[in-house]
Amino acid sequence: MASALEGLRVLDFGLAILGPSCTAMLADHGADVIKVERPGQGEVTRTFGPFVDGQSLPFVGLNRNKRSLAVDLKTPEGREIIFRLIAGMDVLVSNFRPGVLESLGLGYEEVRLRNPRLIYAVGSGYGQRGPYAERKKAGHETMAQALSGVAYANGDRAGTPKPVPVPIADITGGNLLVQGILLALLARERTGQGQRVEVSLLDGMLWVQGWFVSRPSEPAKSVGPREERNPLSGGVYHTQDGYVIITHVFRPNPLREICATLGIDDLSLDPRFASATAMAAHADELQALLQGRLREKTTTEWVQIFEAADVMCAPVRSLDEAIEDPQVVQNEMVVEVDHTPHGTLKIVGVPVRLSETPGRIRTSAPAVGQHTVEILGQFGYREAEIADLRRRGIVAGGEPAVVGGG
Amino acid sequence: MASALEGLRVLDFGLAILGPSCTAMLADHGADVIKVERPGQGEVTRTFGPFVDGQSLPFVGLNRNKRSLAVDLKTPEGREIIFRLIAGMDVLVSNFRPGVLESLGLGYEEVRLRNPRLIYAVGSGYGQRGPYAERKKAGHETMAQALSGVAYANGDRAGTPKPVPVPIADITGGNLLVQGILLALLARERTGQGQRVEVSLLDGMLWVQGWFVSRPSEPAKSVGPREERNPLSGGVYHTQDGYVIITHVFRPNPLREICATLGIDDLSLDPRFASATAMAAHADELQALLQGRLREKTTTEWVQIFEAADVMCAPVRSLDEAIEDPQVVQNEMVVEVDHTPHGTLKIVGVPVRLSETPGRIRTSAPAVGQHTVEILGQFGYREAEIADLRRRGIVAGGEPAVVGGG
Repeated sequence: MASALEGLRVLDFGLAILGPSCTAMLADHGADVIKVERPGQGEVTRTFGPFVDGQSLPFVGLNRNKRSLAVDLKTPEGREIIFRLIAGMDVLVSNFRPGVLESLGLGYEEVRLRNPRLIYAVGSGYGQRGPYAERKKAGHETMAQALSGVAYANGDRAGTPKPVPVPIADITGGNLLVQGILLALLARERTGQGQRVEVSLLDGMLWVQGWFVSRPSEPAKSVGPREERNPLSGGVYHTQDGYVIITHVFRPNPLREICATLGIDDLSLDPRFASATAMAAHADELQALLQGRLREKTTTEWVQIFEAADVMCAPVRSLDEAIEDPQVVQNEMVVEVDHTPHGTLKIVGVPVRLSETPGRIRTSAPAVGQHTVEILGQFGYREAEIADLRRRGIVAGGEPAVVGGG
Repeated sequence: MASALEGLRVLDFGLAILGPSCTAMLADHGADVIKVERPGQGEVTRTFGPFVDGQSLPFVGLNRNKRSLAVDLKTPEGREIIFRLIAGMDVLVSNFRPGVLESLGLGYEEVRLRNPRLIYAVGSGYGQRGPYAERKKAGHETMAQALSGVAYANGDRAGTPKPVPVPIADITGGNLLVQGILLALLARERTGQGQRVEVSLLDGMLWVQGWFVSRPSEPAKSVGPREERNPLSGGVYHTQDGYVIITHVFRPNPLREICATLGIDDLSLDPRFASATAMAAHADELQALLQGRLREKTTTEWVQIFEAADVMCAPVRSLDEAIEDPQVVQNEMVVEVDHTPHGTLKIVGVPVRLSETPGRIRTSAPAVGQHTVEILGQFGYREAEIADLRRRGIVAGGEPAVVGGG
């Protein structure tokens, strides 16, 4: 079976997580993604550890299925190569700071003249216009979390904010950028024309909080109380040998069911815990009362007991443990990929599952410029020209590599 | 300008966040989304506060641009209505627990016989097959965070896990489901056939951590040290009047630049802070040394000073503050929508920006069954039939409503 994006050609200026996670998705679903890298060091993620034999593990995860073209964008000849490629592309992806593409002669209006069918997809920290764009403020996961209220919401009880330690802004931005590209491809089926697609880390963080954003336009308008955090949703408890998280909501009296499952007196009869509001006001006391009993059995025992009662309960796992979970294995969310000469690596799988045109991992992440010669050849460069460009350091990378494996 | 999905018809069984956030995206980009709700209470999110005049604010955010059909799926006549609608749909979306659609006669194989072009898109907690699916374990944000390593990674220094308090698993799942649907629509342009699309909260949380998942297949293989959290990335500091987060990476000596910006001695000359590894080992001491100076000015002053030096620095905002940020306003990420008779509400905007076929918010969230009569009429039900179905409680909802505004 072909994947959904078979035949789609993508020129990828992605850096770090936002851009590369977007183009990894496109590549997994069949697109031919050409990753543009600077000769030598290559994309910045290659410098992030941990490493295996000098190979960055973070880089490998989000750059499978791509080909690498190493070209120096600071030279006119390097930019000329990009112009020539753009004529044959369906999609351009970038998460350079606003203004950088323009400074390379790759602004939307210019590129569009060269290829009106091109989808020009850009991700940034805060948007392409407005105060932060004007100040050319650098975008980063932590900045988007600070500005959007997420680091604040994740703070401790003393009020000290705390950024979430997994890249939710970057990955959300990457997901939104994929959506924008796919929407633009569907529109192109009708109009024959490309367009510009924009997303930002900040906008993505607002979308994640969409549930909480809604409010009356007139601040004076009476709003019911914002509910305190429900202590029955996401409570964290020590067990004999670890931690569990318990969530029991959407029932007439969830606390009664939890107490019955624990084999303790029905705490919902206690006025301190008689309603959601009351429980929120006495959350610590409730936590302490439930905690006592939960210490008495192991995590595995409690999970079985709660699941049998259809009360949601899960062990708290580290990522190292999580990837061994039989369900994660069943879902093929950790996949082995041939990464010759560094042996076989495990990387994250394909989270969007299509029955008839499935995505798949065909090749591991490329070396810097691994496909330079092959790609230039495809776009009509003659051997002598390529040799000259290499000699002058405008492009870099070895012999055509065998694309295959996986 | 038409939106990208104009003309697309979606039957939406979404509940809470995963399904509704997916169909909100589709609706924002022009799809006609019919939200199937139970007569009376409607979708469960309608019971979540805070409320304005009895209207759930969380519900409003993720259900704009949809039409509501109130129908009792427990009756054969109710299911017959759904079968009739399915023949005219492009997409079916559901995040019922695995097995529920099947129990309603709406399993993939059955539905496909009725409409082979239909895209059948389902989101679940952990996947449609495998141990959790077999145990019919209920899916929830907090469970996915517990099982995936996210609650663990977000824990405090004492090792107590802590779920992230914004719905990253649900929204990531919704984003992935949108991607799957759009991929399947693109594939359908070629094949003429629909297919099944599956995503899960658990898989989404692995994708968010894709950067950290990669590892050698042979555990014995030597891996460089996993880097400690870089104290120069996402450090949280008190200012005179609040908090800032500072991130300065990707430079040869970022600490020197931070110290110069603060006007203090160059701490990078101190052996404790001479490298990233050394700083990680002495993170608390570094934090304390930088903190002293940062207390001396206000957040606004420091942000200006750091931005002028091109060191990333942002104020830590609450969500209430964030939505007033001029950049958020510029990005139209908070949008006013007419919600007669409850006045005008502010809700989250459209985070995927397309230049030629933009998404937009046309109508606010519907009342339960607001479009029942209109939708049944569209699908060929005669007035007398509709009246009969309403009398028997199989469908519910008032007169055809005016769709417009926004």
